[in-house]
Amino acid sequence: MRIEIEWPPWVVEETRRIDKLASQLERMAFVVRLSELNLQHASGGPFAAAVFDRRDHALVAAAPNLVLRSGYAIAHAELLALALAQRVRGVFDLSEDGGSYELVTSAEPCAMCLGAGCWSGITALVCAARAEDVEAIGFDEGPKPVDWRTALADRGIEVTCNVLRDEAVAVLTRYRGAGGVIYNGRATR
Amino acid sequence: MRIEIEWPPWVVEETRRIDKLASQLERMAFVVRLSELNLQHASGGPFAAAVFDRRDHALVAAAPNLVLRSGYAIAHAELLALALAQRVRGVFDLSEDGGSYELVTSAEPCAMCLGAGCWSGITALVCAARAEDVEAIGFDEGPKPVDWRTALADRGIEVTCNVLRDEAVAVLTRYRGAGGVIYNGRATR
Repeated sequence: MRIEIEWPPWVVEETRRIDKLASQLERMAFVVRLSELNLQHASGGPFAAAVFDRRDHALVAAAPNLVLRSGYAIAHAELLALALAQRVRGVFDLSEDGGSYELVTSAEPCAMCLGAGCWSGITALVCAARAEDVEAIGFDEGPKPVDWRTALADRGIEVTCNVLRDEAVAVLTRYRGAGGVIYNGRATR
Repeated sequence: MRIEIEWPPWVVEETRRIDKLASQLERMAFVVRLSELNLQHASGGPFAAAVFDRRDHALVAAAPNLVLRSGYAIAHAELLALALAQRVRGVFDLSEDGGSYELVTSAEPCAMCLGAGCWSGITALVCAARAEDVEAIGFDEGPKPVDWRTALADRGIEVTCNVLRDEAVAVLTRYRGAGGVIYNGRATR
């Protein structure tokens, strides 16, 4: 018994080109580009995320949403990027090595990924599209407390929103326009 | 690039013995027993979960918490049981085949697993220990809305709490007493 999620070859190719991205805008531009490429490859929803080391801005792990391709509802971009970063670093708590890690995501995390962020050991979260942008195209963000940003701050995670929001929203809009699958849980479809 | 989580042999052995469990108490007793066995095997926290088919009460998938063994912070029992059930059934939305699935868990889900439940396609959630029981031994439940049960009901998921609560709390207490690792995110330790 096992679960296994494999990244598509195009993601491996795209991330191999990246070493360090010094500015927050560059890091988000890379993530939004991954979300855009995910439309072309139809691997899942119009979302992507990446974990960077805050000491040297090195890319540690990146992932697009792979729900459709993998067949797992948990295969959201943030959850996958965090898990891959833990595998790469060899620790289930990214803060274990004394480091500091940033999760950059093309949209504010859903309830599941919000929780996953809390358990990951990251110290910063940077988001592009807002929850209302994601909900505007039909996705459900799930049960999140209204004050979720405070909840992260209380757990030592800095939150920055609206970084390249328009660019990320343009990807969401294209996905919806192209008839992309909206794959919430049963009752919300 | 991939992530991979393998179930320990003892879990395979324990679940192989189970076919159908007709009563809710039997299903929960099985799950609490898995959480108890997880202490002996030190694979992770004192938690377990399982997915049952509500049509015939067949066990579809079960998992203990595997955070320590797998090295992934996402390896909570509920998330793993849901993902394995999706693999077994071959769908990322368990309601796709017209079926109805129940997640039975030894403790109320944390924020991450609450979200994972919403995206899984289950129609029922049954819990033993309460959030306050889990927090009493030092675990963080994460940012959950106060009315999380309503949020699940709104998404077509029936919630039942307190089934074999005392038995599940006894496992939590033994874990704490034995000096079990409390592995929350960084800032909460």
